[in-house]
Amino acid sequence: MTKKARQIVGAVDIGGTNVRTAVATPLGRILAKDRFPSRPQHSAEKLAERIIVSLQSLAHDIGADINQLSGLGCSVPGPLDRKLGVVRFSPHLDWHDVPLAALFYELLSVPFTMDDDANCAALGEAHLGAARKATNMVYVTISTGIGAGIVIDGRIYRGSHGLAGEVGHIPLERSGPQCACGNRGCFEALASGTAMGEQAREAYRSDIPTSLRNMVSSPDELTAEHVLAAADSGDVVSARIVAMTAVYVGAGLAMVASAFDPEMIVLGGGVIGHGNSLLERARNEFAKRAIAPLGELVLIAPAQLGDDSALIGAAFLASQDAEETGGMSAAAGRGGVHVH
Amino acid sequence: MTKKARQIVGAVDIGGTNVRTAVATPLGRILAKDRFPSRPQHSAEKLAERIIVSLQSLAHDIGADINQLSGLGCSVPGPLDRKLGVVRFSPHLDWHDVPLAALFYELLSVPFTMDDDANCAALGEAHLGAARKATNMVYVTISTGIGAGIVIDGRIYRGSHGLAGEVGHIPLERSGPQCACGNRGCFEALASGTAMGEQAREAYRSDIPTSLRNMVSSPDELTAEHVLAAADSGDVVSARIVAMTAVYVGAGLAMVASAFDPEMIVLGGGVIGHGNSLLERARNEFAKRAIAPLGELVLIAPAQLGDDSALIGAAFLASQDAEETGGMSAAAGRGGVHVH
Repeated sequence: MTKKARQIVGAVDIGGTNVRTAVATPLGRILAKDRFPSRPQHSAEKLAERIIVSLQSLAHDIGADINQLSGLGCSVPGPLDRKLGVVRFSPHLDWHDVPLAALFYELLSVPFTMDDDANCAALGEAHLGAARKATNMVYVTISTGIGAGIVIDGRIYRGSHGLAGEVGHIPLERSGPQCACGNRGCFEALASGTAMGEQAREAYRSDIPTSLRNMVSSPDELTAEHVLAAADSGDVVSARIVAMTAVYVGAGLAMVASAFDPEMIVLGGGVIGHGNSLLERARNEFAKRAIAPLGELVLIAPAQLGDDSALIGAAFLASQDAEETGGMSAAAGRGGVHVH
Repeated sequence: MTKKARQIVGAVDIGGTNVRTAVATPLGRILAKDRFPSRPQHSAEKLAERIIVSLQSLAHDIGADINQLSGLGCSVPGPLDRKLGVVRFSPHLDWHDVPLAALFYELLSVPFTMDDDANCAALGEAHLGAARKATNMVYVTISTGIGAGIVIDGRIYRGSHGLAGEVGHIPLERSGPQCACGNRGCFEALASGTAMGEQAREAYRSDIPTSLRNMVSSPDELTAEHVLAAADSGDVVSARIVAMTAVYVGAGLAMVASAFDPEMIVLGGGVIGHGNSLLERARNEFAKRAIAPLGELVLIAPAQLGDDSALIGAAFLASQDAEETGGMSAAAGRGGVHVH
């Protein structure tokens, strides 16, 4: 195969802390990758330029040219308008209505496509990760918040307004704690890292003995990570918080299974990544809670691609969308790179 | 157009009380229809024979022949195995593992396909009913139980094990009343006709004044219909049951919207069909409960096809499945009708 004939796509995962870039095959195999800080003090324009420089260098590393990319897929943190190519809001980057597609089109004349991080991670795990043998899968991320990406027949299902899979804001308990969305008892208000931190702060301020008090100088500093670490070291209060979180994670996954009946639910996010005790308990609760026979049929598995889930998903997105728009890649007048 | 060139399909809706049959165009327009009692004392074999006789007569009425049907679609009450063509269980008909597809194949050599009533009604409403302009919709039926049919891109989404849309068994309140499925506080346990009847019986047995007591000779006879009628006549207890049911219907629909983000949720079933006061209240609750902006974007509409939803859906199913299996219709050796 000659170099020119080899199909390659560009993939970008813009996170709150780091940007990760890759040149990959259309089937998501990473050929070369790079990472650098997202540095929110820079503008979105500067960030896009930095990303193009990184992709140029990666293409060069594999003996190719950035203009050979048949598409560029991008994972972004936060809600977006895919039609307009605009990132609505990203708190960590302090972005509001950033026209990301237009920024990239100006720099590089290849088809650009983007989606939020949960959808990209879902696509990555569905094709090359834990759910690579599944036709239908749901990826649920449990970290600061709770989000989901739904893959049906190998493609992301976004719903009619791009909001499908807002499972974090489905109430599991009408009388539960207040959620940021205005409702009470949402999955996210009960089982997210934020909810764990909240319970840790309550315990800190109570009279109950807990090693959480020795880990921080102020209760405001407590996070889910402290709770998970303290539970591992035998702190009873923290172990109880982890156990209750697992119960709600199991209940939330039962809800997801009843709605979507996937072959597999893949769990990602910091709260799950920490260790297996929460995952095991959540699995047990799921098996009890899910309507028969889904409790036995739907597999619950941790994500397998680590930090690469969304990056690999972005590569898939680039090739799927290029395929959908047909000859767009060829028609999009290859003007080449124009970094200003 | 000659009679031979005209494409027609057969549609059957097997209900607990009545069977409805039709000859229709592949796009679901009913050309002639019939209904007769399902008479559970007869065997499934006899019922299938009776259905074929009805379809023969309908085909004759429009100047066609039953062997011209390009497919036969059937709506059945209760869980089924589409791959095996078996109805697992249907309490009203006293059916257990009935090989319905085989029964029909023996009588009529045309491609046979079937699905449960909620999925068929969803397909009917999605193509010719309330959601005929929608790409993605969810049909929710609220009667004895609560079920749903999900239509994505004009086709039924069944999930990986045929159990997608089991929304009736998603808990809305962990501490709620016991559900038949074993869990507590399921949507169905809170908002179905059965749940309304249960609350009516509790009220009957209490000291509270209610006209429900004058409507039946024993509390065991009370159903949702009594509650809806009494609420319309000003009974305070019944009005409160209807109001609480509407609150839970609204909460359940908010959950459906957050999961699937459809353009429209179509409501069917006896509890909704009775009148608009419950629907209006449920809509208001939905608008308050659903995560922004879904509360405004997702339309809630009553079913429009009345008793024909599932029959029309069965016609669509017949033509969609014939299309999917390609030349199956031609290949299926037209042996003609063989009623024994």
